[in-house]
Amino acid sequence: MIFASDNWSGAHPAVTQSLERHGAGHAAAYGASDVDRLVEARFNEIFEREVAIYFVGTGTAANSLSFAAVNRPGGVVMCHREAHVAQDECGAPEFFTHGARMVPVEGAAGRMDPGHLVAELARFRPGFVHAGQPMAVSLSQATEAGTLYSVAEIAAIGEIAHDRGLALHMDGARFANALSATNASPAEMTWRAGVDILSFGATKNGCWCAEAVVFFDPVKAEQFPYIRKRGAQLFSKTRFMAAQFDAYLADGLWLRLAAHANAAADALRAGIARSAHAREAWETRSNEIFAVIETATAERLRAQGATFYDWNPPHDMPGLVGPGEGLYRLVTSWSTESAEVEGFVALLA
Amino acid sequence: MIFASDNWSGAHPAVTQSLERHGAGHAAAYGASDVDRLVEARFNEIFEREVAIYFVGTGTAANSLSFAAVNRPGGVVMCHREAHVAQDECGAPEFFTHGARMVPVEGAAGRMDPGHLVAELARFRPGFVHAGQPMAVSLSQATEAGTLYSVAEIAAIGEIAHDRGLALHMDGARFANALSATNASPAEMTWRAGVDILSFGATKNGCWCAEAVVFFDPVKAEQFPYIRKRGAQLFSKTRFMAAQFDAYLADGLWLRLAAHANAAADALRAGIARSAHAREAWETRSNEIFAVIETATAERLRAQGATFYDWNPPHDMPGLVGPGEGLYRLVTSWSTESAEVEGFVALLA
Amino acid sequence: MIFASDNWSGAHPAVTQSLERHGAGHAAAYGASDVDRLVEARFNEIFEREVAIYFVGTGTAANSLSFAAVNRPGGVVMCHREAHVAQDECGAPEFFTHGARMVPVEGAAGRMDPGHLVAELARFRPGFVHAGQPMAVSLSQATEAGTLYSVAEIAAIGEIAHDRGLALHMDGARFANALSATNASPAEMTWRAGVDILSFGATKNGCWCAEAVVFFDPVKAEQFPYIRKRGAQLFSKTRFMAAQFDAYLADGLWLRLAAHANAAADALRAGIARSAHAREAWETRSNEIFAVIETATAERLRAQGATFYDWNPPHDMPGLVGPGEGLYRLVTSWSTESAEVEGFVALLA
Amino acid sequence: MIFASDNWSGAHPAVTQSLERHGAGHAAAYGASDVDRLVEARFNEIFEREVAIYFVGTGTAANSLSFAAVNRPGGVVMCHREAHVAQDECGAPEFFTHGARMVPVEGAAGRMDPGHLVAELARFRPGFVHAGQPMAVSLSQATEAGTLYSVAEIAAIGEIAHDRGLALHMDGARFANALSATNASPAEMTWRAGVDILSFGATKNGCWCAEAVVFFDPVKAEQFPYIRKRGAQLFSKTRFMAAQFDAYLADGLWLRLAAHANAAADALRAGIARSAHAREAWETRSNEIFAVIETATAERLRAQGATFYDWNPPHDMPGLVGPGEGLYRLVTSWSTESAEVEGFVALLA
Repeated sequence: MIFASDNWSGAHPAVTQSLERHGAGHAAAYGASDVDRLVEARFNEIFEREVAIYFVGTGTAANSLSFAAVNRPGGVVMCHREAHVAQDECGAPEFFTHGARMVPVEGAAGRMDPGHLVAELARFRPGFVHAGQPMAVSLSQATEAGTLYSVAEIAAIGEIAHDRGLALHMDGARFANALSATNASPAEMTWRAGVDILSFGATKNGCWCAEAVVFFDPVKAEQFPYIRKRGAQLFSKTRFMAAQFDAYLADGLWLRLAAHANAAADALRAGIARSAHAREAWETRSNEIFAVIETATAERLRAQGATFYDWNPPHDMPGLVGPGEGLYRLVTSWSTESAEVEGFVALLA
Repeated sequence: MIFASDNWSGAHPAVTQSLERHGAGHAAAYGASDVDRLVEARFNEIFEREVAIYFVGTGTAANSLSFAAVNRPGGVVMCHREAHVAQDECGAPEFFTHGARMVPVEGAAGRMDPGHLVAELARFRPGFVHAGQPMAVSLSQATEAGTLYSVAEIAAIGEIAHDRGLALHMDGARFANALSATNASPAEMTWRAGVDILSFGATKNGCWCAEAVVFFDPVKAEQFPYIRKRGAQLFSKTRFMAAQFDAYLADGLWLRLAAHANAAADALRAGIARSAHAREAWETRSNEIFAVIETATAERLRAQGATFYDWNPPHDMPGLVGPGEGLYRLVTSWSTESAEVEGFVALLA
Repeated sequence: MIFASDNWSGAHPAVTQSLERHGAGHAAAYGASDVDRLVEARFNEIFEREVAIYFVGTGTAANSLSFAAVNRPGGVVMCHREAHVAQDECGAPEFFTHGARMVPVEGAAGRMDPGHLVAELARFRPGFVHAGQPMAVSLSQATEAGTLYSVAEIAAIGEIAHDRGLALHMDGARFANALSATNASPAEMTWRAGVDILSFGATKNGCWCAEAVVFFDPVKAEQFPYIRKRGAQLFSKTRFMAAQFDAYLADGLWLRLAAHANAAADALRAGIARSAHAREAWETRSNEIFAVIETATAERLRAQGATFYDWNPPHDMPGLVGPGEGLYRLVTSWSTESAEVEGFVALLA
Repeated sequence: MIFASDNWSGAHPAVTQSLERHGAGHAAAYGASDVDRLVEARFNEIFEREVAIYFVGTGTAANSLSFAAVNRPGGVVMCHREAHVAQDECGAPEFFTHGARMVPVEGAAGRMDPGHLVAELARFRPGFVHAGQPMAVSLSQATEAGTLYSVAEIAAIGEIAHDRGLALHMDGARFANALSATNASPAEMTWRAGVDILSFGATKNGCWCAEAVVFFDPVKAEQFPYIRKRGAQLFSKTRFMAAQFDAYLADGLWLRLAAHANAAADALRAGIARSAHAREAWETRSNEIFAVIETATAERLRAQGATFYDWNPPHDMPGLVGPGEGLYRLVTSWSTESAEVEGFVALLA
């Protein structure tokens, strides 16, 4: 009954076997090997266009270096108030951009409200140096709150960004889960909706350590090789990432794994809906659930071996948690077993 | 005949199998899993004392974050002029320390001369803010020039550093090769000789991606968890590193692999010594060789499939390379085959 | 009718004359001259204790370098959402701290609400690296909104900060105006109420360019000389600042100038209160006023030569400005003439 | 007998009087006042073309922000090994560029040798991310060693820089002294010889605090307003700088002051040449002299009230200072009196 995070899962056998297969012999380091080339071609196929991809080691690196690629002095990234880049990366986005600010935009359940985005952007007047200058809008798909943007919502935000000369970045730590939950294609969900840079996460969904920054606009990638190396994210044996992606992206494995995680979350949601001791804090999709659970029940669940995290209530839901209750996050993964879900739901009843 | 770099090698089967073995099931993320604990205990054994270790993804990260851990405003790292941290990390050490300077110290064949170190340090007067303030001395073992410090030489440098309140850092990207070549123990080579922080590299010597920062002085590590996270080097599935180290350090595998690489280099050195078309640029040990080779011969070797890099001559050897000659670096690895060496030597004759 | 900002004023004759008086002859540079010593002693008197002071060139520098002095990796400064450090310094605080975040705390009219401060701090759990770590609380006195904290309110915030090991910083760009409006002594308003570091601004209130960072806790200043030099804020001819402070602080000139500015603001407030076309947006004290004015009236005033800025409404007052209205800031200074106020008020009637 | 530094001088009466003249009344802040405009026009005249100028508070700021304006990720500035930016700014250039490196170029007596510059640049291969990428060449005029580049020498270095797409920066902390010593015009010495950015120093030569960054190529200045504000160098009352420059640049005052300082240095040189106890360490011009003096003599001079600094011998002159001798720096200024020089020379005899 491990629902702490999808990064508590291990690696899918196909991924590890690919590492084994590619482990022998010599190959050019620093991104120049044959399997690097292969994976680049695979990304082109998946996104139905030529893209520039760069492996990095963590989602935090993918996000932070993406911002560095489009940063300007005094730069500002507009993002949701509860975004991972704003709340959970220990200031790495600010660090790698030398102080760019993550300016919070409000919006229900982890999704930026386009009206608020416009209002916040209007506070920055051109050439008014004191306020700094917006340089990017960043949204997460799936969001930190377990919700999803529709393709149309992404496109609306993209238009706001591009009208003002800002890059649109997508934090796709759970990109596969979002695709699987919406049936949108990778292209529809990203560049066709205006996304310029994608943090493509594979670690949580069956890889060991595989993240990529995907540039749909190659001009924005021009200095990225130096940005990545200076940021200590240029791995020597890039085969170790390429081999993982090679297996992950083959025959739709990635989408099947995400569908599995999403289905497990659906089963969990159903169980919560039937419980008298718990309720969803807000409606979620994909593989994250936020539940208000009676504290006593939560303690009982943990005593029985369930693992899940306390969560800070969102700023815009002050009355969410009543007395004797707590807010908790539950995350399923590609390796969640149905017995885990069933056991949890049974204890919750 | 691949002598481009030891990071052109893949991963040893034991390492990949360990990844497979640890891939199943859930485990706590961010360094809290059982195998993380196991590897920490293994490091304690190897170094014959309690140490604090932190996994990071690249050698550049290990070095840069080590410096960040001991940095002071206006900080200065004393290192050899041709050190990797000074020449080959795209400014990452400066970036992660917000501008600490790598001040060059001279010394033959990649080894800091203690007299020069003392002289350079004497240029910094206490409280004279204009010059900045030294905060660490960094040496590489094995050095970038394929040479080695003796334990006594390290201790002498350590004493200079500690007398002035500076941390002693060792870049151990090829630490195993140095140990194997000298028969010193890990403890003798490091903390017993005054090393405070070690960048412990395993990637080049049989792992996929496994680097660790080892603190012998736990006080210096106090803020490191935040430094690492802010630096985008906190991996979620730390099992993927721990599992590699687990295999790498078991039963002396790491030292056997390094011994293999060193022996291959010895054979290569012998071949070069016999050749009329090449000579060692300076005496080396461990698994790196720097050779002055007739350009025509080098071209012929490459045409036959040999891979090796051109190298910038050291600043202190201006007359090293004559007309019709070039300076080249040859690196062997744990996976170098004797046929590769023999083929190369035959072509060189 | 210049109400654009108090930094549109020039320098008081006493200040310029002091510069002339100290201009001749040689004197030790970089803070070692006799007049530097004199001013340091004057600060000790004013604050009734030994303090460590460091001149810097701008208020932005004073704030940013103060934060740098107490920063930790992944550091967080708690400040009001509309604070100058968060909104008006182009990311300088983030830049000089390598990415420390300014985390917004709510509170009416520019003053942090202690309850919200506690709630926001509670979101950071010890050792939870993902969120970063609070390192300081920063309040402005007078605030950006033209309001004031009472000494007791400062002490309450100081206690919250110190209970959690955080430094308390005060942005005193308008410190004299706050003192004058409250009749608190410099000591009462600062260290006796728990302030650790003060950005002491004199530029707006009659100097040319004179700002100082005042450390009440000398331990926090230990590395400051290097922080300041690295930050390009160590001026060579420190006499040019010391001479200004010498005149500014002599015989209570600074408090008289502030009292003048405050009185001019009071007169302006009275005029606004009598006007049918304008109202104070919220109650203010000191020398800043925020007024909702009919747009047509504002245009008429500007056409008649009045100068004042449009202002972004605070986030927590969404319905503040009605149709046909605008929010404007009016600032008086030591050199505001009564004719300016009278003329403005007359036009407003 | 103050020869410690030209920044031990005060301010010329014309400068202080200008501050007094411009002190009254209101004026637009942040660079928008009439006197700001006036000074900008004056700079255009002096340089015989339209230039973009930005006031900053220190020479360190001028240099560091200049580099920030042309920086690239992993950026490298080529400069003389003993350059002020490399040795005397506490890492500020590295700090403001987030880790750009100052790569040392050799050359006798503080002047970069063009051959060495070419050789060092050749070590950087295009696209080889490990080494980083050169982005600027910086030379000082007058140099830190009291010597001068001829206009032709500057042009030669400019050509090397521009051929490789690098900006040419000139550190002109003592620009007036260089002009006065060579009779070159400001235009000849800078943009006509290929200089793209000039740190125009006036502080040492008669101002209180007046430095400007001059962009001859406006494209390079595009982001500079944000870079300056983020760097805490945007002063509010820019009149205080403009007023200084207004007086400084009027009627050739600046060149007369520099000529005075240079002449005092010439007299000092003549005295040293006649002395049996001292000799010039190398030939200098402008207002700096480096002298090898018998230690006993130096002590005697200091006991008589002479002030001057010990100096670190240049790296390329190891045998410069014999036993019983020391290396010292002597600097004259616009306010050096002939009695000071005569007194010193008499004691030296």
